[in-house]
Amino acid sequence: MRRWNFHRRDLRDDDVAVRILYCGVCHSDLDAIDHGDRRVFPLVPGHEFVGEVVATGAAVTRFAAGDRVAVGNIVDSCGVCEACSAGQENYCARFPTLTYGGADRHDRTQTQGGYSAEYVVAEKFAYRVPGSLDLAGVAPLMCAGVTVWEPLRRWSVDSSSAVGVVGLGGLGHLAVKLAHALGAEVAVFTTSAAKTDDARELGADDVIVSGDADRMAAQANRFDLILDTASAAHDLSPYLRAVRMDGTLCCLGMTGSLEFDPLSLLIGRKSLASAGSGGTTGTQDMLDFCGEHGITATVEVLPAHQVNNALDRLRRNDVRYRFALDMHDHEHDRRASLGT
Amino acid sequence: MRRWNFHRRDLRDDDVAVRILYCGVCHSDLDAIDHGDRRVFPLVPGHEFVGEVVATGAAVTRFAAGDRVAVGNIVDSCGVCEACSAGQENYCARFPTLTYGGADRHDRTQTQGGYSAEYVVAEKFAYRVPGSLDLAGVAPLMCAGVTVWEPLRRWSVDSSSAVGVVGLGGLGHLAVKLAHALGAEVAVFTTSAAKTDDARELGADDVIVSGDADRMAAQANRFDLILDTASAAHDLSPYLRAVRMDGTLCCLGMTGSLEFDPLSLLIGRKSLASAGSGGTTGTQDMLDFCGEHGITATVEVLPAHQVNNALDRLRRNDVRYRFALDMHDHEHDRRASLGT
Repeated sequence: MRRWNFHRRDLRDDDVAVRILYCGVCHSDLDAIDHGDRRVFPLVPGHEFVGEVVATGAAVTRFAAGDRVAVGNIVDSCGVCEACSAGQENYCARFPTLTYGGADRHDRTQTQGGYSAEYVVAEKFAYRVPGSLDLAGVAPLMCAGVTVWEPLRRWSVDSSSAVGVVGLGGLGHLAVKLAHALGAEVAVFTTSAAKTDDARELGADDVIVSGDADRMAAQANRFDLILDTASAAHDLSPYLRAVRMDGTLCCLGMTGSLEFDPLSLLIGRKSLASAGSGGTTGTQDMLDFCGEHGITATVEVLPAHQVNNALDRLRRNDVRYRFALDMHDHEHDRRASLGT
Repeated sequence: MRRWNFHRRDLRDDDVAVRILYCGVCHSDLDAIDHGDRRVFPLVPGHEFVGEVVATGAAVTRFAAGDRVAVGNIVDSCGVCEACSAGQENYCARFPTLTYGGADRHDRTQTQGGYSAEYVVAEKFAYRVPGSLDLAGVAPLMCAGVTVWEPLRRWSVDSSSAVGVVGLGGLGHLAVKLAHALGAEVAVFTTSAAKTDDARELGADDVIVSGDADRMAAQANRFDLILDTASAAHDLSPYLRAVRMDGTLCCLGMTGSLEFDPLSLLIGRKSLASAGSGGTTGTQDMLDFCGEHGITATVEVLPAHQVNNALDRLRRNDVRYRFALDMHDHEHDRRASLGT
């Protein structure tokens, strides 16, 4: 990654210009850099960021200069399909416009992300940030946070629920915080016994080391919902068995194929689901909920010029639990971005 | 298969003895005969049958001699686990006792099925048959029928629902009849255009030939629930794409692994589910619903001594849509069964 200057588009009537303060570093940024489509290079990653509105288009009604806003991984969609009508633009039938590496729906120029001094976005895809929250920790809520929030809501998690969380990374640690704040009983499945204390501090009521066959077997039929945030390939059958009758295992971290014994799905009439990102309705609801409950991501903040260090450490999973890049050092140059 | 004589157990206090009139021929009977565990041979298959009560144990309260009853593929369960407490004995945490090839929970003797003159069963696992229904057509309701009924109820199918049915065999034809009677819009997916008229006669509003790529693509995001009853291995991705946001593809006919593109699950936050058989609550509900709506399986009735003919034709899928064996010719010998 190196510094790269380019011009953001002039503001359209419904656009806001956002001076970026913090941008989270997501695993999918790493995928785009290491394994992504090179035809979209030079590419500026970053799709979970917070900043301050510095200019507004003529028709903007919801924001004014000085407002704190956040942006996630979607910046436009068709607006008319069933999913868009339901505020679930993440499932737009014509595919949403991604915050970076996508094609703008008006002029077909490539979108460039939030490892950048500024972003220009339609106000519909900018979100109010509750004033009480630490801004660096808000950034990862916009991707990691809403990705776990929407399934927690879709499967109606509340104080009567038992929720399992597989993996304790960027997504997993927020799943624990949010499920706990929703009142659920929360258990973390982890490969590492060393994470037990951390998991409990985040709000877990129980920690199960997944290599302990006896403890795994004892989880049978326990959970209403398990959110599996582990990205490495693994057999899903033990987690399906840990789901209650009519319960759901929702896989959020998968990169490859899903392996499981079909009988572990049949016995107990269980569901295997997946989900990705969030729509405008869920994203604002999540931010408001986090404001009420004082929830942010647990972040390690690095100055923007250390982006390559952050990416290297993320490659080794050496972060608790998300990096946030501090973009203040770009302030002297509004056009500065970090591209690959 | 050949004739084999053995004695049913003496009646326990909660048992009824049933003289069997008709027994359906299920694909899993074929599996047990062709590929099953030979240690349980000699084996009498048959787990969907109707008959007449001929004797009752001392503590039986729900049935009397002369009553018409039906029995499905489960004849006992632990009775105390969460699933059993919910009337879902099919998902008993200690595994239910199967109607044949299982081990009786009291004396550990092997259960023998309904290709037989008589069966002895605890009254809890015998069901009232509505008087209006054709008995031969009731028999397959007890396995094929309840196997499609329970997911239709679990996923709340009603007149607002769009339901897809993949495959038009024993399970599929009943899924069409039941979903139609529940008021749903029903579409059948079939590999064979020749089944179009039959599907419509059964109640389908639409028929999609799965080899027609354009029509398949046009089904995207259409169905609240798809019941996949096809037993041959096939890619599930096209059917996941045909499910609406938050909808479910429920696989009922699978024998091997489930193949699909994980993205077809993620986009639209969809669920892949499975289910098998029915519990005591759902089974009686299904029979009562069939009584109200005049629904039975469409059967071809063969005399019991033609069982090998029925099995050979089932191996070739040469039946519309289920065989029912007429057991009347066993009447002269109460001990006669058909074993392998």
